[in-house]
Amino acid sequence: MLKSLYPNKMLVYVTRRAHFNAAHRMHNPNWDDAKNAEVFGPCNNANWHGHNYELEVTAVGEPDPETGYVIDLSRLRDIIEERVVSKVDHKNLNLDVDFMRGVMPSSENFVAAIWRELEPHVAPARLHAIRLYETPRNFVEYRGE
Amino acid sequence: MLKSLYPNKMLVYVTRRAHFNAAHRMHNPNWDDAKNAEVFGPCNNANWHGHNYELEVTAVGEPDPETGYVIDLSRLRDIIEERVVSKVDHKNLNLDVDFMRGVMPSSENFVAAIWRELEPHVAPARLHAIRLYETPRNFVEYRGE
Amino acid sequence: MLKSLYPNKMLVYVTRRAHFNAAHRMHNPNWDDAKNAEVFGPCNNANWHGHNYELEVTAVGEPDPETGYVIDLSRLRDIIEERVVSKVDHKNLNLDVDFMRGVMPSSENFVAAIWRELEPHVAPARLHAIRLYETPRNFVEYRGE
Amino acid sequence: MLKSLYPNKMLVYVTRRAHFNAAHRMHNPNWDDAKNAEVFGPCNNANWHGHNYELEVTAVGEPDPETGYVIDLSRLRDIIEERVVSKVDHKNLNLDVDFMRGVMPSSENFVAAIWRELEPHVAPARLHAIRLYETPRNFVEYRGE
Amino acid sequence: MLKSLYPNKMLVYVTRRAHFNAAHRMHNPNWDDAKNAEVFGPCNNANWHGHNYELEVTAVGEPDPETGYVIDLSRLRDIIEERVVSKVDHKNLNLDVDFMRGVMPSSENFVAAIWRELEPHVAPARLHAIRLYETPRNFVEYRGE
Amino acid sequence: MLKSLYPNKMLVYVTRRAHFNAAHRMHNPNWDDAKNAEVFGPCNNANWHGHNYELEVTAVGEPDPETGYVIDLSRLRDIIEERVVSKVDHKNLNLDVDFMRGVMPSSENFVAAIWRELEPHVAPARLHAIRLYETPRNFVEYRGE
Repeated sequence: MLKSLYPNKMLVYVTRRAHFNAAHRMHNPNWDDAKNAEVFGPCNNANWHGHNYELEVTAVGEPDPETGYVIDLSRLRDIIEERVVSKVDHKNLNLDVDFMRGVMPSSENFVAAIWRELEPHVAPARLHAIRLYETPRNFVEYRGE
Repeated sequence: MLKSLYPNKMLVYVTRRAHFNAAHRMHNPNWDDAKNAEVFGPCNNANWHGHNYELEVTAVGEPDPETGYVIDLSRLRDIIEERVVSKVDHKNLNLDVDFMRGVMPSSENFVAAIWRELEPHVAPARLHAIRLYETPRNFVEYRGE
Repeated sequence: MLKSLYPNKMLVYVTRRAHFNAAHRMHNPNWDDAKNAEVFGPCNNANWHGHNYELEVTAVGEPDPETGYVIDLSRLRDIIEERVVSKVDHKNLNLDVDFMRGVMPSSENFVAAIWRELEPHVAPARLHAIRLYETPRNFVEYRGE
Repeated sequence: MLKSLYPNKMLVYVTRRAHFNAAHRMHNPNWDDAKNAEVFGPCNNANWHGHNYELEVTAVGEPDPETGYVIDLSRLRDIIEERVVSKVDHKNLNLDVDFMRGVMPSSENFVAAIWRELEPHVAPARLHAIRLYETPRNFVEYRGE
Repeated sequence: MLKSLYPNKMLVYVTRRAHFNAAHRMHNPNWDDAKNAEVFGPCNNANWHGHNYELEVTAVGEPDPETGYVIDLSRLRDIIEERVVSKVDHKNLNLDVDFMRGVMPSSENFVAAIWRELEPHVAPARLHAIRLYETPRNFVEYRGE
Repeated sequence: MLKSLYPNKMLVYVTRRAHFNAAHRMHNPNWDDAKNAEVFGPCNNANWHGHNYELEVTAVGEPDPETGYVIDLSRLRDIIEERVVSKVDHKNLNLDVDFMRGVMPSSENFVAAIWRELEPHVAPARLHAIRLYETPRNFVEYRGE
């Protein structure tokens, strides 16, 4: 018989990290070129620039007593691959990604949009946080608030 | 006279990172070999596999005005070494570790069991979170909930 | 027209990482040399020692619909540079840094003092957490509590 | 017409990094248990231990003027996956890996054996070096000498 | 009087690491779209993709006895910034970078072109190697051969 | 019987990474303060500054057929600890380190001095290279040339 570590509920946060790269450009279509250049600086370059993104997806739940898993991390890896990475890797975030259409492609909006893509698929675990590294020095996190 | 930075209570979270390696195998003794192979895939390999684990232990408390420390991080290092690393480093999690006996050796159960080993020893600080990296892309966290 | 991703409030946490190095020494002027040596060990070395510090500053807020930014991360970078890095980089934390005068130069007190330097300058975002890595294995975090 | 950067030969070193984990044990069958324990210490644990390995494979050659590639790095990734990772990932180096049979499973012998597996498959590039990280603090390199 | 560590010549290799990001696309104008798609796969995406690049520039020489420096690393940092980073950061390697005009924008050609930009400027040190990380798993190196 | 992987000589490079921190200051006693400030900038700060250093020591040799080791990496770790780390960790490189007396405490001179401390102790392996990271962006290497 497998023991339970704790008699009552026990919550564990599990995280899977994924990698992709993409091009984007900061440009507000409501503004003229001068204002876009002033506000966004080099991020406004008309010929695009790009990043290697690191994505950390954290789900939370109670470990299944038979497997010890909150969610099989290879299943979480496949969900992230199918729902996000396959749609954004080696793509242009402004032009190629359906779930980013009509939104400013900032990291802030990108990470919140990724939440919406993943949230329905991790049950019975719950999505807890998504962190997106745009560079090793810049990252954003959305927690569904 | 040493100044206080804040007139009232001030909480700081302090983290110490440790490293060890170990072998393990995902195998539920209530299931036959076929079901174990199907559910756990390569993690079920009868001849074991292994990992370099990174362990982050976070305690929280008020800095002592005389030392500026929540808990001396070299004391926290020694507690982690004595209570956890010396029992799991270069060991087999299924066979060699008393505090894992009878539990599925998933990272989820492992991190929660480590909490139970460390929790009584960090006073007057309180344990806040324990994070365990199984690989650079997979990690789990337990917060005592 | 730019879409909103979520009809109601949406909070995103944005983090900027900075780097600096400094010398310091743990020494309580209320104690004699023997007690300082006993409590602080090698950190008490009269001729100082030093670190490369990594600083992560996290602000939280709602992305501006026109820019997609909670706070322009290059503005946050400049605030950290002006208010903190320019005052501590290649400096001695015990002797050269006005905002550390009269406090024990532990990482705990240092991170809380950095909070006080940055907090007034990130509006309309709010400061959420500041994490300071003293070494790759030791870090502290202050969240304004 | 595509230009050549340099009129004569130009050599570039290209590296692909891969990841796997495995169990192993240091044990010389010619020695008794006491000598094995004395020489290998915790690495001799009868119940195995394990590592996350990082493998860096470096090939060298002249970039093809039509592609700019020395060797397509996704082809190199597939060669490493097929010839090495699929045979060692989640495996026991002493028991499961045909190309390690009869050799001491030290990192030194392991990296040299990996060279022999990969060397025939990278033409027209040449294998230059293979580096294997056993832990973040220990690594070995073989250069075909 | 400052001592010499070694009576005769002593060579030291000094490296400075820089960071930038850029968009690019693999596309050979001599080929039709089908062949480009087949050879370059997702790297051929018409709407570009991008990377965070890490650049390591290594110079070699004898330390000056008065400064202990082969080349002041802040001078090397400024040379890399002026000659390379300012021309490629937040740019499109196919469209915006004069020293890449007419060459396939592979990492192999890119690193060799960067050598040509830097080589005249590091005297009296000599350029020894330039390493360029396109992703954490792919990197190339040019050594002037 | 243990097999040999290669009938003839086989060389493997083995590396051990160590960590320490120290304070230092760039100051040439032959120059006045103005010239020191001009040449060394913030590195000349009279109150010192400091770094977390990462040290990589690479030895080369033939693996022993009975152990598979070029040199037991835990023996190499102990040599580095005894000969270098214990003398420089939490120390001031200008004032506290005997083997740096009379030399400019640049990273270039420091890494060459470390070579001299370690070189007699790694037989029958040979020292191949020593790399010293002063910051994540600056590092030096000495190869005994």
